[in-house]
Amino acid sequence: ALATPALAQANPEIRWRCQSSFPRNLDVLFGTAERVANRVAALTENRFRIQVFPAGEIVPGLQVLDAVQAGTIDCGHTAAYWYIGKEPGFAFFTAIPFGLNTRQMTAWLRHGGGNALGDALFAEYNIVGLPAGDTGAQMGGWFRQEIRTQQDVQGLKFRISGLAGQVFQRMGASPTLVAPADIYPALERGTIDATEFVGPHDDERLGFFRVARFYYAPGFFEPSARLHFMSNKRQFDALPQQYKDALAIACAEADSEMVSRYDHLNPIALRRLVAQGTQLRFYSREILQLAWRSNEALMADLAGQNARFKTIWDSYRPYRSELFQWFRVAENSYDNFAFAAAAG
Amino acid sequence: ALATPALAQANPEIRWRCQSSFPRNLDVLFGTAERVANRVAALTENRFRIQVFPAGEIVPGLQVLDAVQAGTIDCGHTAAYWYIGKEPGFAFFTAIPFGLNTRQMTAWLRHGGGNALGDALFAEYNIVGLPAGDTGAQMGGWFRQEIRTQQDVQGLKFRISGLAGQVFQRMGASPTLVAPADIYPALERGTIDATEFVGPHDDERLGFFRVARFYYAPGFFEPSARLHFMSNKRQFDALPQQYKDALAIACAEADSEMVSRYDHLNPIALRRLVAQGTQLRFYSREILQLAWRSNEALMADLAGQNARFKTIWDSYRPYRSELFQWFRVAENSYDNFAFAAAAG
Repeated sequence: ALATPALAQANPEIRWRCQSSFPRNLDVLFGTAERVANRVAALTENRFRIQVFPAGEIVPGLQVLDAVQAGTIDCGHTAAYWYIGKEPGFAFFTAIPFGLNTRQMTAWLRHGGGNALGDALFAEYNIVGLPAGDTGAQMGGWFRQEIRTQQDVQGLKFRISGLAGQVFQRMGASPTLVAPADIYPALERGTIDATEFVGPHDDERLGFFRVARFYYAPGFFEPSARLHFMSNKRQFDALPQQYKDALAIACAEADSEMVSRYDHLNPIALRRLVAQGTQLRFYSREILQLAWRSNEALMADLAGQNARFKTIWDSYRPYRSELFQWFRVAENSYDNFAFAAAAG
Repeated sequence: ALATPALAQANPEIRWRCQSSFPRNLDVLFGTAERVANRVAALTENRFRIQVFPAGEIVPGLQVLDAVQAGTIDCGHTAAYWYIGKEPGFAFFTAIPFGLNTRQMTAWLRHGGGNALGDALFAEYNIVGLPAGDTGAQMGGWFRQEIRTQQDVQGLKFRISGLAGQVFQRMGASPTLVAPADIYPALERGTIDATEFVGPHDDERLGFFRVARFYYAPGFFEPSARLHFMSNKRQFDALPQQYKDALAIACAEADSEMVSRYDHLNPIALRRLVAQGTQLRFYSREILQLAWRSNEALMADLAGQNARFKTIWDSYRPYRSELFQWFRVAENSYDNFAFAAAAG
C-alpha cells in the first residue's frame, strides 16, 4: 500500500564536530567514526551531519573525553580506558585483562547490565557514551627479545594501555603509555623495549616489525576492546528522537562492522609480516598464569579502594564466569576441533 | 549549529506484510524480525511500517521464500538453507557443516564477497536478501541414547536441517526434516530417535529434555546460522533510498543483536536443563572426524554436480582456511587459556 507524499515539518539541520582519538592512516579505527557519520547522514536525509576530524586536529587524541565534556567538540570517538586516571571503572567499558571476548562483551553491555552502568558513569562527565566498534582479541605485542619466563619481563620497558600496564607492573615490568604516533621512534631509539598496539593490520602500518622481531599472541590484556562514540549530553538530549535513533543504530552497527573489517584484514597483514621476517610466538603458560594471578590481585585491590569499581566488577565478574563456562560448551569445542581439522 | 525547521516533501507512507518462519514462542528468532520492523518504523518516523506475522499465519513457515518471490507477502524472515531443494548453494548463506563461526561468517558476507554471491542468487528468485540475525554455534542435538561411535549412528532417525542431513546420511543415519512444532510429538512417539534444533534457550521451550536425556555439543553442522530478511525485489527497488538504508542498517544491527541475546540467555537455560536431569555430552573425536570426512566428500560431490555451488564453495573454502588459521592465533589461544583459568 502506498499513500501520496505529503508536506511535513522536517527535522532541523544539525552539524556536529567529532574528533577521533585515531590518526587517519589507522583506517579501520578512524574509519569507524566516519562510517557512523555517513550512516547518520543517510538515515536523516543529510539533515544531521557529523564531520569527523583525526586525532590532534582540534584536541590531542587522548583528550577527547575532556573536550566532549567541556563542549569544545560535540562528540568524539575514543576508548574509555584511556581515562582511568579520572575513574578506574572506565576500564570495564573498553577492555580489562582476561576479560570478556568480543561477543561476550556485546552481551554484557546490551543485556547483562553493562551499558546501564556505563550510562551512569558517562553521565557524570556530561556525556552520552554509545559503544561503537571493537577490535576483536588483540595481539600481545612486539618484543626485541623472546619472553619465556617471569625473568624475561623484569624491568622491561613496555608501552601498554589501560589496567594492563598495572598488571605488567606487578609482573616486574616498567609499563609506559605512549601515543600511537610516538611509539615507533621510541622503540627504534630504545626508549622502550616493547610495545603492544592492536593487531596485524594496524601494527603493520605503524612499522613495528622493522625494529622488533617477535610478535606475541594472545593479547590477553585486551581480549576485545570496545570503542565509544561519546556525545556531549546537552547536545545529545536536544536532538530530535529520530536523530538519536539514527546515531544509536549507526553505533550499534559499528560494533560488528569494525571487528568484521579486522577479521578480514588481519590475516592478510599477518601473512605479509611473517613473509618479512616477523617471528610469531605464543606467551608461555608461565607468563599467562603469572599475569592471571597479577590481574586477579589488581582487580581485588581496585575493588577494595573504589566503590564504583567494585559495583561494576560485581556485575562483570559473575557474568564473565557464566559466559566463559557456556562458551566452552558449543563455541570453543567447535573452534578447537574445526580450526585444527582444517589445518590438516 | 541549528537551523530553523523547514517544510519538506515527506517520503510516502508504506505498509509491508512480513512473515517469519518462526512461531511467536521462539522469542529470539521471531523477535528479530519484530525488532527490525520497530527500528525501521523509528528511523522513518513511522512512515515505513512492517507488520510481522508468525509462521503459518499467511503461508507455511518453510515457504517464506516462495511467498516473497511470488509477492504474496512483501517480505519475510527465514533461513536460506531451507530452500536447498531449489538450489544447494543457498546453504552457504545460512550454515554449512564445519563452516565459519559467527564472526567469520560476518566477515565473509560483508568483506569476503559472500553477500555479492548471495545477491546474485537471491535476485534469480526476485528477492533482495539481507543477512539479519545469527544463532551463534548451535548445540549438537538431543538423543535418547549416548552416541560414541560410528556404530551408534547407524540407522538413527535424526531430525536435522540443511546439508547436515546429507552428512549424517553418509555417516549411516536416517535424517529427516520436521517443522519445529512437530518435533516434540515425533520424538515422544519414537517416530524419530533424535533431534537438533538451536541451543538451550529455544530447545528448552520446545521441551525436548522431557523425552531425550543426552544433549550433545558442539553443533558442528551449524557453527553459526545466519537468517535473512528477504524482500520482494520489485517492492524493495521501489522504496525511497532512506527506507532502503533504514532496512539495511536494521538488518545489519540484527546480526549482532540476535546472537548477543542468545549469548545472554543460553547459559541460563542450560543451567536449568542440567538441573532438571539433562546430561551434557561432547561428540567423540571418532564422530567428529567421521563427520568432517563425510562433509568434505559431500562438498566435493556437490561442487562437481553444480556449477553455482562450486563458485560459492571456491570463495568460501579458502576464506575459511584463512580465517580459521588467523583465529587460532589471537582469539582461540585467548579463549582456551582464559576459559580454563576462570574455571579454576
